Amino acid sequence: MIIVMRAGATDKEVQGVVGVIRELGNQEHVSRGKETTIIGMIGEERGIEEARFAGLPGVVQVLRVLTPFKLASRQYHPEDTIVKVGRRRIGEGTFTVMAGPCAVESQEQLLKTACEVKKGGAAVLRGGVFKPRTSPYAFQGLGIEGLRFFDKARKETGLAVVTEVMSVTEAAIVGRYADILQIGARNMQNFRLLEAVGRQEKPVLLKRGLSSTIEEFLLAAEYIIKCGNPNVLMCERGIRTFEKYTRNTLDLGAVAAIKKLSHLPVVVDPSHATGVRDYVIPMARAAIAAGADGVIIEVHPEPDKALCDGPQSLTFRQFDQMMKEIVPLAKVMGKTLVK
Amino acid sequence: MIIVMRAGATDKEVQGVVGVIRELGNQEHVSRGKETTIIGMIGEERGIEEARFAGLPGVVQVLRVLTPFKLASRQYHPEDTIVKVGRRRIGEGTFTVMAGPCAVESQEQLLKTACEVKKGGAAVLRGGVFKPRTSPYAFQGLGIEGLRFFDKARKETGLAVVTEVMSVTEAAIVGRYADILQIGARNMQNFRLLEAVGRQEKPVLLKRGLSSTIEEFLLAAEYIIKCGNPNVLMCERGIRTFEKYTRNTLDLGAVAAIKKLSHLPVVVDPSHATGVRDYVIPMARAAIAAGADGVIIEVHPEPDKALCDGPQSLTFRQFDQMMKEIVPLAKVMGKTLVK
Amino acid sequence: MIIVMRAGATDKEVQGVVGVIRELGNQEHVSRGKETTIIGMIGEERGIEEARFAGLPGVVQVLRVLTPFKLASRQYHPEDTIVKVGRRRIGEGTFTVMAGPCAVESQEQLLKTACEVKKGGAAVLRGGVFKPRTSPYAFQGLGIEGLRFFDKARKETGLAVVTEVMSVTEAAIVGRYADILQIGARNMQNFRLLEAVGRQEKPVLLKRGLSSTIEEFLLAAEYIIKCGNPNVLMCERGIRTFEKYTRNTLDLGAVAAIKKLSHLPVVVDPSHATGVRDYVIPMARAAIAAGADGVIIEVHPEPDKALCDGPQSLTFRQFDQMMKEIVPLAKVMGKTLVK
Amino acid sequence: MIIVMRAGATDKEVQGVVGVIRELGNQEHVSRGKETTIIGMIGEERGIEEARFAGLPGVVQVLRVLTPFKLASRQYHPEDTIVKVGRRRIGEGTFTVMAGPCAVESQEQLLKTACEVKKGGAAVLRGGVFKPRTSPYAFQGLGIEGLRFFDKARKETGLAVVTEVMSVTEAAIVGRYADILQIGARNMQNFRLLEAVGRQEKPVLLKRGLSSTIEEFLLAAEYIIKCGNPNVLMCERGIRTFEKYTRNTLDLGAVAAIKKLSHLPVVVDPSHATGVRDYVIPMARAAIAAGADGVIIEVHPEPDKALCDGPQSLTFRQFDQMMKEIVPLAKVMGKTLVK
Repeated sequence: MIIVMRAGATDKEVQGVVGVIRELGNQEHVSRGKETTIIGMIGEERGIEEARFAGLPGVVQVLRVLTPFKLASRQYHPEDTIVKVGRRRIGEGTFTVMAGPCAVESQEQLLKTACEVKKGGAAVLRGGVFKPRTSPYAFQGLGIEGLRFFDKARKETGLAVVTEVMSVTEAAIVGRYADILQIGARNMQNFRLLEAVGRQEKPVLLKRGLSSTIEEFLLAAEYIIKCGNPNVLMCERGIRTFEKYTRNTLDLGAVAAIKKLSHLPVVVDPSHATGVRDYVIPMARAAIAAGADGVIIEVHPEPDKALCDGPQSLTFRQFDQMMKEIVPLAKVMGKTLVK
Repeated sequence: MIIVMRAGATDKEVQGVVGVIRELGNQEHVSRGKETTIIGMIGEERGIEEARFAGLPGVVQVLRVLTPFKLASRQYHPEDTIVKVGRRRIGEGTFTVMAGPCAVESQEQLLKTACEVKKGGAAVLRGGVFKPRTSPYAFQGLGIEGLRFFDKARKETGLAVVTEVMSVTEAAIVGRYADILQIGARNMQNFRLLEAVGRQEKPVLLKRGLSSTIEEFLLAAEYIIKCGNPNVLMCERGIRTFEKYTRNTLDLGAVAAIKKLSHLPVVVDPSHATGVRDYVIPMARAAIAAGADGVIIEVHPEPDKALCDGPQSLTFRQFDQMMKEIVPLAKVMGKTLVK
Repeated sequence: MIIVMRAGATDKEVQGVVGVIRELGNQEHVSRGKETTIIGMIGEERGIEEARFAGLPGVVQVLRVLTPFKLASRQYHPEDTIVKVGRRRIGEGTFTVMAGPCAVESQEQLLKTACEVKKGGAAVLRGGVFKPRTSPYAFQGLGIEGLRFFDKARKETGLAVVTEVMSVTEAAIVGRYADILQIGARNMQNFRLLEAVGRQEKPVLLKRGLSSTIEEFLLAAEYIIKCGNPNVLMCERGIRTFEKYTRNTLDLGAVAAIKKLSHLPVVVDPSHATGVRDYVIPMARAAIAAGADGVIIEVHPEPDKALCDGPQSLTFRQFDQMMKEIVPLAKVMGKTLVK
Repeated sequence: MIIVMRAGATDKEVQGVVGVIRELGNQEHVSRGKETTIIGMIGEERGIEEARFAGLPGVVQVLRVLTPFKLASRQYHPEDTIVKVGRRRIGEGTFTVMAGPCAVESQEQLLKTACEVKKGGAAVLRGGVFKPRTSPYAFQGLGIEGLRFFDKARKETGLAVVTEVMSVTEAAIVGRYADILQIGARNMQNFRLLEAVGRQEKPVLLKRGLSSTIEEFLLAAEYIIKCGNPNVLMCERGIRTFEKYTRNTLDLGAVAAIKKLSHLPVVVDPSHATGVRDYVIPMARAAIAAGADGVIIEVHPEPDKALCDGPQSLTFRQFDQMMKEIVPLAKVMGKTLVK
């Protein structure tokens, strides 16, 4: 941490900062220039916030030298993490397509979708049974009953399953039925939940919060890894901006940034990012070209009848079209499709 | 709900929409104009999303007629809600000052702060013992031990207590020690937690999410009320924008809007909204003039040593200065200070 | 400027930075710590961007020590600027109400409005004749003809006049008819236009851009002052965010920040900030309590017939109500109403 | 336009709306439902704002049926516009690389860059001589002298030239030296400037404003086309959001949306969008996969010595690397590289 003092800071002010540094068990390095005095803190800085110094008398700015995340950082862990889901390997060098309905509505709907997306080239089946809904009056998902439908779908298609966990108490049971636990965007900073999935064995698909910075996103991953679960898939799903033609704004720059800052695989969700069926395929293409390791796509047998997110769900035909368009791009990018 | 069809929509497309309306147990009213056809849905629309119609063939726009929240709306409940906390009445006609440290650090720190803010004119003591922190390495709060410190502070000062609940499993125990349960900004759409505090007896201080719209904020209140707890205090605490001179952007327009759209009391948190001590007093003044029913303020015996949020915490002297400035404004606004 | 090098930066990398500092005519102060090397640049830093160093090998962060604006800063000019408009003095200690129609529509409309707002307590008449409109099909203003209407209104009421300038070529003629030149939000970074009004004698009301930071806003003022015109009124008029219940998000924290960082007076525009008539009065009240030196308000004889911005225009009766509410607040704030 | 009245709207309120519709020369279609009354306006709606109705008594919502832009819309002009720059054809089916320094610094720098990017596969040379700078103390460009340097660069390489116009008075002279006139992001709603380039013969590269919606962006293009110049290239260059790891947030969803809503070609600027050299290549790749018709890239012989935007400028070697990566993607996308 580097603490910049105001021009003409007094000795007492400098000593105040030095005192805090020592109190934190660290050492100081004071450099007095003509115009300003700069104090470096030598020692562990993670877990110490800029705020600890920002309000002290004479301090004008506080600068962090290290990233605040460690286990999730590439500095600490230079090789790419490959997340294993059974025999499948998600990460650098491969491309994984996850697909399925927004909400699981029936055994038949789920199974039919599973068969179709499997045929099209997906490796993972998605589908929500615990649904975080903005309105308490909206369809809240089938709950545990819906979980059971996954078993048959997995058995008949061999697809792995990803589904959302909404609370600490659901983590264990979802862990029994799913191969990947999803943390939704609205729960990205539900820290108790992050700790709970951090104690599970199954990999976690962590969605970026609607207004989360890349740094906060990686710190959320840090919570999970710190609790013992290193298998985190970072999912960029669009951030909230002023633009209204799309539901959210897909931030593909975040894909490039996370690939540089971290060793974790990155998956893109163009369905929630755009909210509009017509934009899902172009954004899936763009995701792969940006360097993503996978996409997660909403597909429904009859989007017009979907209980949730119909306008952004692809039909089976559109899903096939998407696969036709992205496979050659994956090849150019040197990525093998995970089956 | 009003569904606008594209120019030249076919009969089949119109029938498709009508079919969905009837399936939902509602009735249609079709109005064919020269340029466009408009279909009104008559009946219950809450719980039905625009998305249910937005993706249907021929549909160009879907328009909600009613607000999606009901119990929280002034349409449904025209009189202002007054939230009772013991003998204190929070809401229209009164002004409540809540104050205390960001984090409870010790019995002594809490008690000292409680005495000072009580003397200054506060009615409620704030302080976090379960702390939602962006980094897993940051101070996470004293937990249950900290809760116990509130008992002494309440006994000696008579102040009511508000503190944050972070998970479903903590709701009951926090409910035993606190007079008001706080839901933090990052948990505003942690729906399981909303349901949990909705089943508690104590009033809830609901903080607005960092990127939540006013509509989503009121829908979060709706979750709580729907579960049986009508005593919700809406807390505007700044939203996330591009501006970086302040930590967040305080949205006082939201105070005016919520006062119009809803019957619930509104409290403003200028400490988190600005993140800068110097701006807390002006924003507390502005909040009261905007029509807020209270403020919640971070105060610390020694902000320079605070384990959390020091730069935005007021000293005791500054807190007294704030009270001196806001009391005359409250008077002009026709509001009585709650003691 | 402070340049932080990566851990283990080589001598060559350090020398690279030092070379650039010297090339810029400044001196370096190199401080080698155990973990990192920090280089301070001593000398003039304004006009040098962080980017000049940010891309150099070995550099991890660049930190500006001084604000990038100088003439507009309180560091440089500690006393509050009072802008004189004839005998009127706008700034600290006074409160100025500017009011009038969004667009000048006719001599009669302007005159009638002028008389009413004068009676109510306004000191300045606003009204647009050159209208920057998002759509080329919208009413573009009466142009020079409209300018002439101001003469009669001023003569009959004694009000000062503020109106917008949209281009360099209009600056001189608007300067002949208006007492204050307005730069609209969409032109806040039209640098040629800033230079043009910087060469005029009349004070300038500078509106904040829709997505401008406070720093950019003050740098826009710096352009004007640097060209010779020190009389700049900073106008906060709401920024663009995700929230849609209000047209923009009024950033009153910016009022507090500009009052601290700069010596220039601050005026608030609650009409454009909220876009909703019902919210204008509460936000005018909040502005004054936040420390603003004035407000600018849209008023129309018949808002329902306004050619522009009807929904946010106050009626005469509402304007009177607003004055009744803000005058006592101004008094509490120690401010005298400018007549 | 569709005007939705509140439940229980009176006849007088309905007649008020009808009166305005007729005043505007249009016809009404009133549809009274059980719960609400809806009024359709039949006739020309472009140029009429929602605000014209939004404030009328009894009105709860106003809904536009047509896009507010016409000449720029695909509804009106279904075939893709191909912009001709000499023998080159920019638009659907082709891919154009524009490259060069942020600022023209000398004849030598420009020429050297031009030769290299030409060799690498660029078709258009970029470079600023009139530079819109946030700070008045920053390098403002070489001005007219710099314009002359383009002549030699064009002659020696055959590249077309794009450069920025900052004011109405510069439009003609820039038009003599450049093949494409650039409107910068900060001037996207400088309507006088849009009109000025609309009267020029040269094609226009229109950059999206930092916080402009796609609709406003297309309306800015509408200004230019309406003034007589149909050759507009839409340039997505990142929008301003809360995220700070990248300078702006590249909105590739906007590429897909504009391709659907409009017939105009779309160019992407990954240099300004990310502000970080390492992210330029991934975002150039993503742009092409999203369906863009070109990219505009900052390249500098020695980025470390660039007077402007060094951190985001590619070296010659990096530019070659970029071309190597995007050419195969262009091929997959069915696009021919414009030489």
